[in-house]
Amino acid sequence: MSLVVQKYGGSSVADAEGIKRVAKRIVEAKKNGNQVVAVVSAMGDTTDELIDLAEQVSPIPAGRELDMLLTAGERISMALLAMAIKNLGHEAQSFTGSQAGVITDSVHNKARIIDVTPGRIRTSVDEGNIAIVAGFQGVSQDSKDITTLGRGGSDTTAVALAAALDADVCEIYTDVDGVFTADPRVVKKARKIDWISFEDMLELAASGSKVLLHRCVEYARRYNIPIHVRSSFSGLPGTWVSNERPQSAQSAQGAEQVEHALISGVAHDVSEAKVTVVGVPDKPGEAASIFRAVADAEINIDMVVQNVSAASTGLTDISFTLPKAEGKKATAALEKIKPAVGYDSLRYDDQIAKISLVGAGMKTNPGVTAQFFEALSDAGVNIELISTSEIRISVVTRADDVKEAVQAVHTSFGLDSDSEEAVVYGGTGR
Amino acid sequence: MSLVVQKYGGSSVADAEGIKRVAKRIVEAKKNGNQVVAVVSAMGDTTDELIDLAEQVSPIPAGRELDMLLTAGERISMALLAMAIKNLGHEAQSFTGSQAGVITDSVHNKARIIDVTPGRIRTSVDEGNIAIVAGFQGVSQDSKDITTLGRGGSDTTAVALAAALDADVCEIYTDVDGVFTADPRVVKKARKIDWISFEDMLELAASGSKVLLHRCVEYARRYNIPIHVRSSFSGLPGTWVSNERPQSAQSAQGAEQVEHALISGVAHDVSEAKVTVVGVPDKPGEAASIFRAVADAEINIDMVVQNVSAASTGLTDISFTLPKAEGKKATAALEKIKPAVGYDSLRYDDQIAKISLVGAGMKTNPGVTAQFFEALSDAGVNIELISTSEIRISVVTRADDVKEAVQAVHTSFGLDSDSEEAVVYGGTGR
Repeated sequence: MSLVVQKYGGSSVADAEGIKRVAKRIVEAKKNGNQVVAVVSAMGDTTDELIDLAEQVSPIPAGRELDMLLTAGERISMALLAMAIKNLGHEAQSFTGSQAGVITDSVHNKARIIDVTPGRIRTSVDEGNIAIVAGFQGVSQDSKDITTLGRGGSDTTAVALAAALDADVCEIYTDVDGVFTADPRVVKKARKIDWISFEDMLELAASGSKVLLHRCVEYARRYNIPIHVRSSFSGLPGTWVSNERPQSAQSAQGAEQVEHALISGVAHDVSEAKVTVVGVPDKPGEAASIFRAVADAEINIDMVVQNVSAASTGLTDISFTLPKAEGKKATAALEKIKPAVGYDSLRYDDQIAKISLVGAGMKTNPGVTAQFFEALSDAGVNIELISTSEIRISVVTRADDVKEAVQAVHTSFGLDSDSEEAVVYGGTGR
Repeated sequence: MSLVVQKYGGSSVADAEGIKRVAKRIVEAKKNGNQVVAVVSAMGDTTDELIDLAEQVSPIPAGRELDMLLTAGERISMALLAMAIKNLGHEAQSFTGSQAGVITDSVHNKARIIDVTPGRIRTSVDEGNIAIVAGFQGVSQDSKDITTLGRGGSDTTAVALAAALDADVCEIYTDVDGVFTADPRVVKKARKIDWISFEDMLELAASGSKVLLHRCVEYARRYNIPIHVRSSFSGLPGTWVSNERPQSAQSAQGAEQVEHALISGVAHDVSEAKVTVVGVPDKPGEAASIFRAVADAEINIDMVVQNVSAASTGLTDISFTLPKAEGKKATAALEKIKPAVGYDSLRYDDQIAKISLVGAGMKTNPGVTAQFFEALSDAGVNIELISTSEIRISVVTRADDVKEAVQAVHTSFGLDSDSEEAVVYGGTGR
């Protein structure tokens, strides 16, 4: 018998109807002869409503208590889901993160899982039950306090439980049909990917694709848990994320894709801003002190470019990108070191977009970079920064150009599907 | 240092404002030099809303899952309350029933507390924190499943914790000023009782007074925990329920009450119905088989009266009262045994009221019963059934007569206050 871990996001269980639909889908998996563990997020907007309440009683809610509060969300959805399944004539039991053995560190609001001891879940499914588990939450090893895992926490719960239970697959049900070669809201002819490697998926997630978070894919790769991302609405096969293409993803379309699997997809990200430090003296240690200042402010920077120094002045410009939300903190940190470093000025620009092309195939194909730049140039898109990895090329452009840029690259690399696929697309909750 | 256990009902924490008001009250108790443990119910209508949701996904929600669902309610209120207290500059930690060591049996939806192991609460208050505890919930000893305590559960949680922590007092905060000599909605001149014995309070609770539930008073009496019932809105002293009148309840009014503490109060109850089995053969075993049938249907009956048999027919009538909600079940059970018992017919009447006079003083005062009946007679109220205990007389009347009856008895026994007291009165949640 196979053991399947499924995860359903908040939009899949937004109301009683959604919960009943998800219950049917879970029962189907059980009827197909599987043991089933279903991880569930809080219903629809519950989390936001609880945060609202918290802010009404305290401007800065205490971390421990905010976690206690927010975990009420999954408690509600998981209990309702278990009831709905029992109403279909199948046995189900719901478990909190703590009951499911999700042990974390003590960092409230963004705890990390340090161990999973799923004894009660194992017993429950061995007794023939469907086990429903609260996503996004755990209990701290030291203080036995309730913790939450932060953004993407429910996906991580599912993958971690799948690993601890040695599950055959972790199915992530969401409100889209899978991972696409580009964001279908931007590229009408974006194609659903049947299979993608962990590595390519990690690069896509790091480049702005929002279907799976980096953290969850990383966990799955470490424990080699195949992920199947699919829609809780359509029931169609979605996207497999794994080390090797599984049998079931060998569709006609899949076979076709094997031939030119040069490129997995095009991702874009408009959540970043660009900071340029103008007129930095071009001598050893200047760049280091700039990035030390930014790092000390606990800001994660993404792309970095240093221009060639102008011989006449001995000055250079250093640019980097970072999350818009951290722009203020970064410029404040840089203003502080201005006297010491002696640069001319700071420029802050939040009207940028990052476009990334991801695919393991580019490692062995030297023409990819050229073709990528040609496509952007033909579309009249100007490039401001460039950064590359073995299996990814990223550029920064004007935010206004993002649609044309993604579309042009998508077409140029033969990723357009023959038809415009009908897809639902929205936020995936936590 | 004193240890005070406080309990706040759902109407006291109905919204963010309510939570902030309660937080201030708790902090006051702490500032007065007490260690404070506060038990809290779910906010306002939360429980009803969750039950609504449950009924939308399943007509008969499973007990285990319903408990998991409902306990989300206190999780929300207790976390918010802890945040609000921390916002006032005091340390607070919230604890679920399970974390607080409330151990119950496995009867979901109406579990009984079988042990309280408040180690974490003790540690928390000893470290200087205010401990906030979820009312109404616990964890089962056998299966470690989450349970709820049923109606009045939060009051019981508070009293049980007070007993386990050897607290000096258990303060039950509610939306009324205390226990009154009659329901102030019915008797405008009802007087707040400063002190009442456990025994009298038990009789009042059993007779329809809703401020404290029987179960909670019973627990307090067993462990000798003084209860102070008071308003979370006014902050005035309320009603002490204990073995002996405390110093603090020796007010001028209290001293006056000591003199004629013959009677504690008048309670009424319109939630019962009357079943009459007409024409029962007056021979041994007939009554037994009737009440066996009702008991086997798990119906709790209250008053029982058997008329004198008419010599001419050898037949008698047996009447009893029971909760209206169980009327159908009872009549169905009685219809079943009709052939065996051979009675004539069943009469069902849900337009009745029970009026009860409670007071330890009546034990030694033979005139009370006569005065009670005279008061009712003078008010033109007809009596249908009578039952008595050592410290209580109850009668059944027409439901229409309830106001006149309670008012007449209240006045007759000198319970009317000089002024009409301003009181807020409403449901007390769970």
